[in-house]
Amino acid sequence: MTPTTSKKPAISTSTQVCALIGNPISHSLSPAIHNAAFAALALDFVYVAFEVEDLAPAIESMRALKGFRGMSVTMPHKTEAMKYVDEISELDQQIASINTIINQDGRLVALGTDGPAALKTIKDADVELGERNVLMLGSGGVSRAIAFTLAKNAPLASIALMDIDKTLLERLASDLRAGTDTSIRADALSHANLERAMGTADLVINCTPVGMHPNPNACLVPPELLRPRQVVFDVVYNPLETKLISTAKTRGLKTVSGMDMFINQAVMQFERFTGARAPVDVMRGVALDGLES
Amino acid sequence: MTPTTSKKPAISTSTQVCALIGNPISHSLSPAIHNAAFAALALDFVYVAFEVEDLAPAIESMRALKGFRGMSVTMPHKTEAMKYVDEISELDQQIASINTIINQDGRLVALGTDGPAALKTIKDADVELGERNVLMLGSGGVSRAIAFTLAKNAPLASIALMDIDKTLLERLASDLRAGTDTSIRADALSHANLERAMGTADLVINCTPVGMHPNPNACLVPPELLRPRQVVFDVVYNPLETKLISTAKTRGLKTVSGMDMFINQAVMQFERFTGARAPVDVMRGVALDGLES
Repeated sequence: MTPTTSKKPAISTSTQVCALIGNPISHSLSPAIHNAAFAALALDFVYVAFEVEDLAPAIESMRALKGFRGMSVTMPHKTEAMKYVDEISELDQQIASINTIINQDGRLVALGTDGPAALKTIKDADVELGERNVLMLGSGGVSRAIAFTLAKNAPLASIALMDIDKTLLERLASDLRAGTDTSIRADALSHANLERAMGTADLVINCTPVGMHPNPNACLVPPELLRPRQVVFDVVYNPLETKLISTAKTRGLKTVSGMDMFINQAVMQFERFTGARAPVDVMRGVALDGLES
Repeated sequence: MTPTTSKKPAISTSTQVCALIGNPISHSLSPAIHNAAFAALALDFVYVAFEVEDLAPAIESMRALKGFRGMSVTMPHKTEAMKYVDEISELDQQIASINTIINQDGRLVALGTDGPAALKTIKDADVELGERNVLMLGSGGVSRAIAFTLAKNAPLASIALMDIDKTLLERLASDLRAGTDTSIRADALSHANLERAMGTADLVINCTPVGMHPNPNACLVPPELLRPRQVVFDVVYNPLETKLISTAKTRGLKTVSGMDMFINQAVMQFERFTGARAPVDVMRGVALDGLES
């Protein structure tokens, strides 16, 4: 999909600047996606990318450079960035990472869009959450964001967490127990534990990188553990259809797309940057083009 | 003139960023000029503009934001900026202002292009400088840049300085006497002093804002003081032809264009930003378009 750029204002002194910061950043599709969306709506914005090691001055620069409207924050800065901003919601503080900074006249407001994007993606897929049991594979940053957002916003029966990293796992479990009313269980990721958890899970969410390019044949869940009426959500979107998703589809299960979550988090950033309704189809088209190339 | 943009790479994570910083910046043509030049050469660069009050973090940001390749520095920051960079030539230190910062892998190299641009413009106009007497009106930043550059690089007979601001005037005169071998004279800007100085001046350079839009009928030099074979250079480029320049032309004198100097300083910045030879005609076309609109 090629968005029209004919109406886009030329860059001038009034152009607002947004930027990705992270390290590495070389494979990010964010500049292409956001610039295409600005162009499609003829908004006077531009989106660039900076590799950043020294985080404090990178974020502080937004206060000094007026017109530096927003940042997308990616690995490895999503937690440390919280130290240098002025405002973070209680939920994002519990999640303990952010991926977006908005410069409101020198006041830096940080937020995470991963959790809300995951929730929206699940709801858009017409997945029922009431009294459901969620099994989350992985307890890193994305898992924290999704688990807290679901626990705070959906009437789940329970969340079961699994990870091979016991420290991350126990910390997320204990933070969820302290910060939400949802029933939480945490177990080491082993075949036996997985088999038992899959026996009661209604929604399975892979928040690990397993199955991501360049290892597309990897999958944490053996096919025989998938049961009828389970819903499978893989946050991995490269490849678009992971082994976990293709296996679930083969079994006739409903699946939720990591690409949809990826688009939704970008949409939410875009709407905070601009105040405009995002051209979702344009953004999706650019993301799909970018993955293919 | 509309440069072709067909080959320009889309902004991506590899795009290098340049920016204007200053306050105010709203009327600057620099984003239009540099972006048109990047586009004409299909260079993977983008040029934005930031209004800046707090200078130190604005400049420090270049060290933290890799890919932030260069800055154009304008009023009121051209002197204070020198405090926050790593390398400045001896001549630029004498001039005591810079207008360009190049980020060389985190090392910030500052330079001024006003003086070299003025010298190039004078030379391109085939103005002889050997053993000539130069009269400079004004002793502010641009005057300092031009006076030091000429004194260091041209075999002048003398430079006469005039200003109504005695502090600026005496400081520039004393700095020129200490830092160059050129004969320097400094006088208050009065009709009598001007009449005397015009009697021996070969090249008259207006470095004051007198005659600038919105006061295009103002002129420091009474027409009757202009003499045959004098050359008149007005750094003011808006309007393109100031009252001083049109009067000199009416008298049949050779004139040197402030617009040419403006283009040359942008060309020199561009070539330092990119390492590429600037598309001068493209840049001039955009500047002229910008002035007309």
